[in-house]
Amino acid sequence: MPHYKAPVEDMMFLLRDVFRVQDIFAELPEQKENDLEIISSILEEAGKFCSEILYPLNAAGDIEGCRLENGIVRTPKGFAEAWKAFSEAGWGGLSAPTEYGGQNLPRTVQILVDEMLSGSNLSFGLFPGLTRGACEAIEAHASQALKDTYLPNMVSGVWTGAMALTEGNAGSDLGLLKATATPRADGSWTVTGSKIFISSGDHDMAENVIHLVLARIPDAPAGTKGISLFLCPKILVNADGTLGARNAISVGALEHKMGIHAQPTCVMNYDGCQGWMVGEPNRGLAAMFTMMNAERLFVGVQGLGVADASCQTALAYARERMQGRSPDRAGTVPIIAHADVRRTLLSMQSFIEAARAMVVYTALEMDREKFHPDATIRQRAGENVALLTPVIKAALTDFGFEAAVAGQQVLGGHGYIREWGQEQYVRDARIAMIYEGTNGIQAQDLVIRKLTLAEGLPVRSYFAQIRQTLAVAAAHSNAAPLAEPLGAALDLLEGVTTRLISGDLAGPDDRNAAAVDYLRLFALVSFGWMWVRMVLACAPGQPLPDALVQHKRAAATFFMQRVLPQATALSQQISAGAGSIMALPDELF
Amino acid sequence: MPHYKAPVEDMMFLLRDVFRVQDIFAELPEQKENDLEIISSILEEAGKFCSEILYPLNAAGDIEGCRLENGIVRTPKGFAEAWKAFSEAGWGGLSAPTEYGGQNLPRTVQILVDEMLSGSNLSFGLFPGLTRGACEAIEAHASQALKDTYLPNMVSGVWTGAMALTEGNAGSDLGLLKATATPRADGSWTVTGSKIFISSGDHDMAENVIHLVLARIPDAPAGTKGISLFLCPKILVNADGTLGARNAISVGALEHKMGIHAQPTCVMNYDGCQGWMVGEPNRGLAAMFTMMNAERLFVGVQGLGVADASCQTALAYARERMQGRSPDRAGTVPIIAHADVRRTLLSMQSFIEAARAMVVYTALEMDREKFHPDATIRQRAGENVALLTPVIKAALTDFGFEAAVAGQQVLGGHGYIREWGQEQYVRDARIAMIYEGTNGIQAQDLVIRKLTLAEGLPVRSYFAQIRQTLAVAAAHSNAAPLAEPLGAALDLLEGVTTRLISGDLAGPDDRNAAAVDYLRLFALVSFGWMWVRMVLACAPGQPLPDALVQHKRAAATFFMQRVLPQATALSQQISAGAGSIMALPDELF
Repeated sequence: MPHYKAPVEDMMFLLRDVFRVQDIFAELPEQKENDLEIISSILEEAGKFCSEILYPLNAAGDIEGCRLENGIVRTPKGFAEAWKAFSEAGWGGLSAPTEYGGQNLPRTVQILVDEMLSGSNLSFGLFPGLTRGACEAIEAHASQALKDTYLPNMVSGVWTGAMALTEGNAGSDLGLLKATATPRADGSWTVTGSKIFISSGDHDMAENVIHLVLARIPDAPAGTKGISLFLCPKILVNADGTLGARNAISVGALEHKMGIHAQPTCVMNYDGCQGWMVGEPNRGLAAMFTMMNAERLFVGVQGLGVADASCQTALAYARERMQGRSPDRAGTVPIIAHADVRRTLLSMQSFIEAARAMVVYTALEMDREKFHPDATIRQRAGENVALLTPVIKAALTDFGFEAAVAGQQVLGGHGYIREWGQEQYVRDARIAMIYEGTNGIQAQDLVIRKLTLAEGLPVRSYFAQIRQTLAVAAAHSNAAPLAEPLGAALDLLEGVTTRLISGDLAGPDDRNAAAVDYLRLFALVSFGWMWVRMVLACAPGQPLPDALVQHKRAAATFFMQRVLPQATALSQQISAGAGSIMALPDELF
Repeated sequence: MPHYKAPVEDMMFLLRDVFRVQDIFAELPEQKENDLEIISSILEEAGKFCSEILYPLNAAGDIEGCRLENGIVRTPKGFAEAWKAFSEAGWGGLSAPTEYGGQNLPRTVQILVDEMLSGSNLSFGLFPGLTRGACEAIEAHASQALKDTYLPNMVSGVWTGAMALTEGNAGSDLGLLKATATPRADGSWTVTGSKIFISSGDHDMAENVIHLVLARIPDAPAGTKGISLFLCPKILVNADGTLGARNAISVGALEHKMGIHAQPTCVMNYDGCQGWMVGEPNRGLAAMFTMMNAERLFVGVQGLGVADASCQTALAYARERMQGRSPDRAGTVPIIAHADVRRTLLSMQSFIEAARAMVVYTALEMDREKFHPDATIRQRAGENVALLTPVIKAALTDFGFEAAVAGQQVLGGHGYIREWGQEQYVRDARIAMIYEGTNGIQAQDLVIRKLTLAEGLPVRSYFAQIRQTLAVAAAHSNAAPLAEPLGAALDLLEGVTTRLISGDLAGPDDRNAAAVDYLRLFALVSFGWMWVRMVLACAPGQPLPDALVQHKRAAATFFMQRVLPQATALSQQISAGAGSIMALPDELF
């Protein structure tokens, strides 16, 4: 039967052997105490919690779902107890500042724990994820009084957080939103509006829900430059920190969704509720966006986590399920003997392991951005993160969904029924391609904003890093055969990049039309880079298990032979431009 | 709000202008009366029935699902009434022989109606589809007595059919099945066994369910050569044709599935029930497989139908939903203005319309196989159908699912919730990649059996037909630019075909590893061929609506520029062979 085991060994290989985080953390004064031993034990413990407490609630939570009873959201059986255990163990405050009760651990550790949460129970994982996001926005922009009032209880998990952005007519285009906020005499605001798709909008797991709501103040400019951010607690907090009266916030409905059934996605009504502004007037979107990189990395990791869970089940099934014959084995064989099944499993693994490496690489850049003493390094790291954020968010959720679908296919009919859990992974993984900015929006962000960020320095530096690895790889017998196809793919990527920045594809429609294929190409090259780095880390003489080394080399070869060839197609597709797409009148589609 | 409109105009374009069925049917004595006017009115009426009766039950049926109450399966509200209306209008017997109450219409008409059934209500469409499949097997193999007893009521829809093949340990490998049949004194058999994943296994919509059950007779050889086929009615039929006692058949459980919730997929127990052998002893699989081509074409069409339904909603939404700005239009624009949304819609349409053309092409070959007076033409047509069956089944469901996912993405968050119906299409479409032989099995069938069928004549003839079109296209100004990339892709396809048949990729593991990519490449070239044929049919001087001509040309160009480039990648991936896939020991995955 299906199970979930946190991939701690692979995570430690990345941290220790591929990225040598011990050297990176040594340069970060606040992090230099966090050695590999500490990190390993944190990951082991987190993995245990996820396997033993959260994973068993995953299927049951999907079946039971959330209910809205007399205005109160009921989460599935066991969720409230799991939240309590999670919070009491301090998992919610892993990367939060120590002054508010957190442990100030690196993002890199945080995000690997997020992968485990996502793989074992995505619906549950969104509660701490959104709470952390709200905390980060409050910490970065709110007044000290608000921080002191709200952060300790949010970090400890006594209260949770929610982000209220989307409205019925304002999704990808938040500039259209209509919620309003009018000032009160005491400096607080009256917030009015209706929001949809609000994850963790209400529930029965914690004492209070702290909503961050986007709304317009009187005389605000139209569009995105007239949006402010407000903190609106479900239950008002008294001056002494105790809970007071109920605020005028209510759940309009629970959305009926394809998946993440144990996650209460709410229609929320803010009926003249009391709120406090976070940050500057009309600068609400900017305040929200300071934590967007982290949120989008988190969503990308959701795609990765669910894909890994699906792959684990597919692999276990493929080893046990006896069907058919194969040329080299006697009698009926486990289906893993069939080349096509092996191909399917390797297609999943060659994505998952490279994606995990990209996550670690990006999270380390976030740690440098936050903790490095050198301002130039901080800035460069931040720009690199900005560049990679849309890639991670979209590619890990797109490929992650495809991997979950492949993992379902390995089980045949058994993948379509509830019993093995594979169909839930597909339904759950699907949301990550949509929320926190659809993958189409991510691709636009990459092509339109990120390629030209800082005059194109970040993207040039990124490609230069890959070239550097290729140069190193050329001298290593195991890595050199991988470097060759990757170099060719990088040539294609650089070629279309130049054309998109300032060449024949730099027109707005051409960029818009190219974006999704371009992001995919960018991701493939990035995954290929990670594979070369992983194989380099497996160089002879490294004290690594032979099984890991063999597996990495095989998966790397597979990636270059059976996945990376798509780069050529993508480059051709991008090169076609938008002409034929734009020429057709709307009504003739 | 979402709706479904049967694509009758596009169907008639294919029948009349692209394939000129009037000329083909004129050569088939039994079909020459069926002119375009008759066919058009049948399609119009069927479309009306699907839009007005079946589509409104689709979402409600998904939500309500089927229930098992005291051993009896209850279908959702309205399904029984719809079945009655469907049967009374004669839709179930469209292509059935007139001697049993059918209308003996061409497969080509039948399959287009199947597309509408699938697009409007896939769960419902499986009832007539499986009944037809059972009728075809009975008609081809059963004794006259069985035919006379069962076919009239099955054709009229008073009774329905079900196919019981799969067991818990025998799915893709039916040779492992364990159900048994022992002879009775009266010539009938006692059938015992448990079957899973039985679509339409039981329900409350018709008076009887006729099960075709695969089982082993005493002393049967092991494997697939020891399987016989039995007709086991849920309720025994008296000599006078009236219903008698309940047979020993019971529903063990309803499967909990990802989608097609309104379709009762049953665990069926045959507890020593009475059955009658259909066909020869130990030749049951062969009997089942005579109707497999038709069944697999039907499943392929399911992928197409659901994709089209999803595309219709996505298109309607894209025209209405106002978000963002675009370079050439003032103010907030409908999202169809954005190049990426247009690209997404065209990716769906360029698949859907080409797939529909492939379906018509293949169904016409089935009609030739059945109705043509010339035995050589019948045989050639049959071989062509055999070649194309796995391609249609797998490619239309794979690409169909991808299209449904794309259609969901167009709606952003609104695609993930139930309201717009897009998430149901994704869940429903997913099954078609699995049942009736998984798409992996289809690919194996194509590469291992179909390429070498009749010494490779069918595949060579198929490619020759494409070359012929390319030669014609070269002289037409609109088609010539499409012929060039298609010719290059065909070169690649022919190249790997030769290598898979008798070259460096002809080893069993290489073929097995190549199969899925090869089928996809084969399908892309086939779709490209259809696009060239459609554009040729739009040649200047044809009396076609300008809107249709413009649309077809744009979609064809899009396909060549933005979809067909994948051919290069697939050819490279296939060329890699199975070496790196097979080398890794099972335990190191």
